Order: sequence, then C-alpha cells, then structure tokens
Amino acid sequence: MKREDTIRILITGGTIDKEYDPLTGELNFPKSHLSNMLNQVKCKVRFVLEEVMLKDSLQMTSEDRKEILKKCIECLENKIIVTHGTDTMVETAQVLGKHARGKTIVFVGAMIPYAFGASDALFNLGCAFSAVQALPQGVYITMNGRIFTWDNVRKNKESGEFEEISHSTSFGGRYRSFI
Amino acid sequence: MKREDTIRILITGGTIDKEYDPLTGELNFPKSHLSNMLNQVKCKVRFVLEEVMLKDSLQMTSEDRKEILKKCIECLENKIIVTHGTDTMVETAQVLGKHARGKTIVFVGAMIPYAFGASDALFNLGCAFSAVQALPQGVYITMNGRIFTWDNVRKNKESGEFEEISHSTSFGGRYRSFI
Amino acid sequence: MKREDTIRILITGGTIDKEYDPLTGELNFPKSHLSNMLNQVKCKVRFVLEEVMLKDSLQMTSEDRKEILKKCIECLENKIIVTHGTDTMVETAQVLGKHARGKTIVFVGAMIPYAFGASDALFNLGCAFSAVQALPQGVYITMNGRIFTWDNVRKNKESGEFEEISHSTSFGGRYRSFI
Amino acid sequence: MKREDTIRILITGGTIDKEYDPLTGELNFPKSHLSNMLNQVKCKVRFVLEEVMLKDSLQMTSEDRKEILKKCIECLENKIIVTHGTDTMVETAQVLGKHARGKTIVFVGAMIPYAFGASDALFNLGCAFSAVQALPQGVYITMNGRIFTWDNVRKNKESGEFEEISHSTSFGGRYRSFI
Repeated sequence: MKREDTIRILITGGTIDKEYDPLTGELNFPKSHLSNMLNQVKCKVRFVLEEVMLKDSLQMTSEDRKEILKKCIECLENKIIVTHGTDTMVETAQVLGKHARGKTIVFVGAMIPYAFGASDALFNLGCAFSAVQALPQGVYITMNGRIFTWDNVRKNKESGEFEEISHSTSFGGRYRSFI
Repeated sequence: MKREDTIRILITGGTIDKEYDPLTGELNFPKSHLSNMLNQVKCKVRFVLEEVMLKDSLQMTSEDRKEILKKCIECLENKIIVTHGTDTMVETAQVLGKHARGKTIVFVGAMIPYAFGASDALFNLGCAFSAVQALPQGVYITMNGRIFTWDNVRKNKESGEFEEISHSTSFGGRYRSFI
Repeated sequence: MKREDTIRILITGGTIDKEYDPLTGELNFPKSHLSNMLNQVKCKVRFVLEEVMLKDSLQMTSEDRKEILKKCIECLENKIIVTHGTDTMVETAQVLGKHARGKTIVFVGAMIPYAFGASDALFNLGCAFSAVQALPQGVYITMNGRIFTWDNVRKNKESGEFEEISHSTSFGGRYRSFI
Repeated sequence: MKREDTIRILITGGTIDKEYDPLTGELNFPKSHLSNMLNQVKCKVRFVLEEVMLKDSLQMTSEDRKEILKKCIECLENKIIVTHGTDTMVETAQVLGKHARGKTIVFVGAMIPYAFGASDALFNLGCAFSAVQALPQGVYITMNGRIFTWDNVRKNKESGEFEEISHSTSFGGRYRSFI
C-alpha cells in the first residue's frame, strides 16, 4: 500500500542545513532546519520528515548512499524529496536513478545555508516541492530553478551551478515528448 | 513562433512585493523585488521580467485582469508565472483559465512580503518555477507548497491558506490520470 | 537600596516591536521581541524586562505616560531603557525629563520593526545599552546613532529622523562641558 | 585641529565583516559591510570609514597593530571606532591603550557575521557608537552589551564572551567614580 498524498523528506545534511558555530568559526550541523523552514512557509502538503544523517556530502560513503537508497525503496510514500550536499548530489542521484524504481525522487540542496542571509534554500525547496508533485516517476535534481534528470546533470565546480551534460537528452526535451 | 526555453514573469504586485514605509508606517510598492529575488537564488532558467502593474489585488479591476490576460496571450513564451496578491488571485486565475489557451500559466504570491523576515515568498516562487516547467498547459496556483488548478481552489479567509473547493476534482486526481 | 548593576527595560510598544499580520495585512503587537533580541545578541549585562504596555505611540494617553513615569520612579534600578514608538517618544521623554530625577533613562525605538528585514532595531538598542551605562543621570533619546537630551530633540516628520532643536544647547555641547 | 563632531571608523576585518563563499564553503572578506550597515540603520552621526585591512584577527601581526595605532594617532578625529576580530581584539586594544593618548577609541566586532541571520553585529556596532560619543578619553571594548576598559578584559575562549579580569577594577567601578 502506498501513501499517495504524502511527501517523504529524507534529510541527509549538506549546506542547506549548515550553521555557523561562533566558537570555532566553522560550519557544522547542530540540527536540521527543515522543520523550521516548512513551518515558516506555511507548507500545507502532507509530509513526513526523516533525518537519515547530517553530513557534508564530501564525507558521504557508498554505505551512506546505500542507506539512502534503502530508505527510498522501503518507505510507504512514492513522492520523496532528498536534501543533500551539492558536491556529491549527482553521485547519490545516480545510485538512486539506477536502483530506485516506481517513485518520484527529487534531490535538492543549497549553495548558501538557510540560516544565513540571502540563501537560496527556500527557493530550491519550493522547486523540489512542485517537482515531486508534478513529475512522473524518476530521479531528479532541482537546483538553480531548473529541473534535471539524474543521468544528465553535473555540478560545474567553477561556477557552483548545476548544468546539463548534453543538451540533446535534456530534461526539457524528454519531458516535452510525453505531454 | 514560441520561445520554448524562456519563462515570462508577469509582475502585478501583491504582498510578495510590498515594502514597509518607515515614514507612514504603511505597506506600499516602491519597486518590484522579483529581480533581486531571482538574483539571490542564482536562478539559471532563462526568464524575462515584465512589470504589468504593482497593485494590492483588492484594488484590481476587471480592466486590470483583461490587461493581464492580454499580456499572457500576446507574449512569445508559453510558460508564464504571474505574481499576484492573494486576496483576488483566484478571481484573476479564473479569467485566464477561461480565456488563455495553449500555455502553462502559474499564479504565485506570498502571505508575508519578501522584504520582511520569515517570508514565504522565495519558497512559493520556487514552487511556481518547477510547476511552470513541469506541468502541462493550463492555469494553476502554487501556494502553501501545493499546486491547484484554477477551477478548484479558493483562499480560506480565516486561515489565509489556499485549499481545494472539492476533493473529487482536485489537481492530484486530475494529474494522476494522465501520467 | 538601588540595584547598581542591573538595567531595567520598560517595554511600551512602538514600531520596534510591531509584527506583520498575514491575515489582515496590518501591523500589530502579538508579543514583544525584546527578549529574543537580547538573546540573539548574547547580551551579558544584567537586565530585567518589564512589559508596561504594547502600544502604537500615537495611541498613548497622558495616563500611559504617568504609568511609565511611575514605573521609572518606583523601580529599584537607576539605569532604565524605555522602548517606545517614535511618533510621541519626545513627548514621553519630556514628562520623564521633568519628573524623574536621579536616574539615567534612555528612550529608544525603531523606524523599521525588528521582525522585518533591514531593521534599525538592534543598532538602536545597542546605542541605548551603552548610553544607559555610560551617561550621567538624566533623560535621553538614542536614535539614528545619536544621543539627544530630552529637552533638545524633535522628530522630523518629513525625514523620519531625530534632530536637535537648537545646536547651541546640543548634547555634544552639554556633555563635553562636564567631562 | 581636531574634528570634534566626526567619528572615524577604522575597519580591520574580523567576523563582523566575514562572508560565506558558496564555491569554497569557507568564510572570507570580499568587501567590508560597514557602509551597508550604517546605511541600513540610518545613522546620522557624521562619520568617515577607513578600511585599514580585512583580516581574521588570528592572522594579525605586530606590524598590523602598529599600523592601526598609527592611524589612530594621526587621524584628525578624537572619537574612533575600530572594527576587529574578537580573537585578538584584547591584544590590539592593549597596544592602543598603552600608546594612544587623548582620544576615545572603542573596539567592536561580532561573534556572527553581519551577513548571516541572527547576528550580533548591528547591536554591537550600536553599543560602540554610543560608547565613543559618551565616554571620556581612553581605550574600550564594547561586546555582549557591556563596556570594558582595555586593561581589564579578556575573551573567554569557552563561552566566546568577553568578561572582566578582575571585578574590583571593572569599568563599572571606575566609571562611577567620576560621574
């Protein structure tokens, strides 16, 4: 039995949830802000939050990715948002793209922490919310206001932005083919 | 000829763009913040901004709605986001729902101005960005993290939230029927 | 007996404490933010907060001013900060200037609510904190980064800024005369 | 000739001016925010801003401290605010306390950058503004809402807060003796 009307949000860490520690001057993860974020924006979609881990995505292991995959496969919901650090977001999306079937899974993160000024976190999260509700089954990344399929996206290390690997198999092209 | 890869953003005012005037203690519209918002979130979708008007939606006339409809019909883009005050957003969406064909049009606004703390503006705008890219032709409202079709939505005056009029013809139902 | 090492903060309302009500679109006072403000800035001066009222200063009556005066006279502390709306701040300061002796009393408020973006509230509050600790007995207003004595200040309605009435009897002049 | 009515603000860096770099995930100094800060709060005291350096105070050398001392001695103003990282603020204050005579010099910084949410920067800056105007000649630190003299203050590394070294010679005691 699937829970059709509920979005599961799997929290894995990343910049979106980082906080500044005034004592050390470093960024860390005292707790996730997702609950506060969704409260702030008066989100009225039914959702469940699950904190799988709170990691910088550069620290993620293949075990961590298996754990995220397992959570996606085993949960009752078929609409899943995964919050994730941007540095290896594509890598985890590929694991899910190859092994998680029959669900709509959307990866999202931020370049600037929610807790800081001028963050992209809330905008990106909004992108993920509509994407997970409107898109057919598959694994996607929503960053920079765009929607990418898991097999045609990379993070440009110099600009910090996500971009398609090739234009001919882009999301736009694929999607338009079935509507 | 249509411009497939560009989103037109029609700015009409509403709380999302309101600002506090320290001299009068009232809220007004010195200018639109949409450009700043999209800059802050490093939006990399191609878009054009057009300021149609800057009005509290309670002040909107049927002439204003005709003007917005005209802009939607005449522009080259077939993906359109309309920023709008929430009080009469449904009314304008109905005008477009009945008369604007062949385009994906998404209405969005905010309950708290972007310029204030703890606003829902960026999240809502993100919802609109994914919705306008992922949804088929039609007229929609994205508020509270949800996606509504223009003919099955109302603003609940007491809670300030958007809700479906009837569940049987809800977006969810409709959409699932074609994917 | 006086409590030398404690600052009493009398909260009376004003823009500094206003909040936006998303349902009505108006500004009101659901609660004071002073406690949150002082928590945010890690204030380590000993202080006590007392909410005398939460009013727009245009609504303040002479009874209200008597009440504030009474609180200032009767409290154990001799360092007092009064948060107050800017429109009639000078009027209340004059009542205290004429009748409250032997204490350092500093009025402060804001042109933009603390709860909004880009507010002057925290800066102004900081000005009041140092002023109440560093200044001799008397009644002062700290606004716009400046320190005014109660009997030589007015709010310029057009600019929204506080200014001296006459330069010859300005704070600067007076103060320099005794240090 | 002294400029009595102007405050010189010497910018040296520190957390108050740090920014998050989304590409590296580190904090750095693309530019000072002091001008924006004073603009935001509608500061109407006459001031001049001088960027001496933009450094993490752990990187400051004795040469840097001599440079700051030189600027303090040579400038026309006798009211000076120095923005400074908190880690070695006390050390620089001691250099100035021993060698800069005849001026009121106030050190200030922040535990959380101005550019982040929930910062103490504006409050601390307000404290410095009143302190530099109200206090007699000498070298001070304003942090945590408190005013310290340069020779009786340390940063508690564990709490991140500034505190007096000994209570008997605290600012409070000293200051009260002359008013």
